[in-house]
Amino acid sequence: MGELAAVDRLRRRLPQPPPGETWIGDDAAVVAGPVGALLLSTDAVVAGVHADLSLVGLDDLGWKAVAAAVSDVAAMGGRASHLLVSVCGPEGTDVELLYAGIAEASAEYRCPVVGGDLSASSQLVVVVTVVGGAGAHPPVLRSGGRPGDTIYITGPLGSSAAGLRRLRSGQAAGDDPLVRAHRRPRARPAEGVAARQAGATAMIDVSDGLAADLRHLADASAVGVVLDEVPVADGASLGEAVGGGEDYELVFTAPERERVTASFTSAGLRPPIAAGRCTADPSERLLAGEPLPEGGWEHWT
Amino acid sequence: MGELAAVDRLRRRLPQPPPGETWIGDDAAVVAGPVGALLLSTDAVVAGVHADLSLVGLDDLGWKAVAAAVSDVAAMGGRASHLLVSVCGPEGTDVELLYAGIAEASAEYRCPVVGGDLSASSQLVVVVTVVGGAGAHPPVLRSGGRPGDTIYITGPLGSSAAGLRRLRSGQAAGDDPLVRAHRRPRARPAEGVAARQAGATAMIDVSDGLAADLRHLADASAVGVVLDEVPVADGASLGEAVGGGEDYELVFTAPERERVTASFTSAGLRPPIAAGRCTADPSERLLAGEPLPEGGWEHWT
Repeated sequence: MGELAAVDRLRRRLPQPPPGETWIGDDAAVVAGPVGALLLSTDAVVAGVHADLSLVGLDDLGWKAVAAAVSDVAAMGGRASHLLVSVCGPEGTDVELLYAGIAEASAEYRCPVVGGDLSASSQLVVVVTVVGGAGAHPPVLRSGGRPGDTIYITGPLGSSAAGLRRLRSGQAAGDDPLVRAHRRPRARPAEGVAARQAGATAMIDVSDGLAADLRHLADASAVGVVLDEVPVADGASLGEAVGGGEDYELVFTAPERERVTASFTSAGLRPPIAAGRCTADPSERLLAGEPLPEGGWEHWT
Repeated sequence: MGELAAVDRLRRRLPQPPPGETWIGDDAAVVAGPVGALLLSTDAVVAGVHADLSLVGLDDLGWKAVAAAVSDVAAMGGRASHLLVSVCGPEGTDVELLYAGIAEASAEYRCPVVGGDLSASSQLVVVVTVVGGAGAHPPVLRSGGRPGDTIYITGPLGSSAAGLRRLRSGQAAGDDPLVRAHRRPRARPAEGVAARQAGATAMIDVSDGLAADLRHLADASAVGVVLDEVPVADGASLGEAVGGGEDYELVFTAPERERVTASFTSAGLRPPIAAGRCTADPSERLLAGEPLPEGGWEHWT
């Protein structure tokens, strides 16, 4: 199957554009942009680096690539509106299965795939670029945290890492929620918007692990961080909660506790967990009185 | 060098954002979007598939990836405004050299790199996503060609293919303009805008080869195409001009000859070459009375 035939088959899997828009099939897609500033992010998912295809399916890899991109926009308090997907892979790659996962996540996050590219390569690489916006509101950067702000986490952590551990052990049940969290991680766009509306001063998603991502936020904000506790997912270890990435829960800082609770509750969301606070000493990095672990997930060596 | 350190070094190569914008370093870039509809496209360039690194440099590959993306927006009559670049490559890849070419093309086309990702992979893959706009004007699709329209080509073709031939022969001089055309192909954004302003009804860039790309335009427009001649670059063969891709000249259709000449001349551009016409029979595909060659460059098998 040639490139054009493959693109045509994939296009039929995906929704069609509304009148006045052009998606896949021209030199560039033509879409109505979001109101206000554009939010743009791109993420590469590489088979064998970011996903072990002996443990997860190609559809899971496709889902994850989209969820990771949508999560980047969620972590700004924005909404993802459009996706572009480039797939490079070896001959025989089941791109239809890959695209099935991409299409599922695209539908879940109401974020259509409007363009893409397809090429041969020796190792499967899926690059998802996301376009989004936060309306007229300023997006929430990593850099706005202030001493005295409370540090919130939108949910328990470690599910994805624990699911991977169970898959590796060969003892995972098909309906294990931790395995599902690893295969089909969820981005949190509604939580991101609720955090922004609650006056969040800084925000990041947990993609590389809480310790690493909270350090990024603290560095960008030039504040210290003191965590009293870390919410650990059922079945996960504290190490998995602190060091495991790809849970895509959001970590944010905000000064007003009542406003945070009200914002999440009025959006029908479980209020986030108040896990610690920002301090005035930028060198401070504490978890339950101990140094916050170093490390995190780097994909380039 | 870890991912974060590498990203930091690359960031220093690239221009810094204006006040109020955030580029590399947060979850997503925050930029002012273009006026009007968004134009979005993504292109993958794979070492060994789209570029032979024994013949061209990593900086050339980086340049080409950006030029190809900018060209997609040019072929809509738009202007590229922002780039996102994902690089996946083997350990030891000289990403600084790659980024030197990316930065040069980014500066040439006044289109900053506002985001990216970096990952390990077995084969070098560079995915460039471009965001652009055409202001309040409707972009030029492939599908608007009408019987009677003249077919224009913005310049002679075959340079890139001829340059590759010379490189393969081992007899290329360093300052050979054909070799330069292969290593540093030029996108034609000014020509694309001039074509739109001249009332272009359909447009495409020559990335896969004139024969293949003109077929795409004719298929999308449901018209026949009759070429009287093909402008061949000095030193290139007719076969290279018809079948060679990556010249990034633009092919467009327009009904009013005087308007085309006036639009290009007033923009300080060489008027495009009137090479043929659209006909009412969608099955007609002729070059100098012979069937237009089949084929074209497909990157997925």
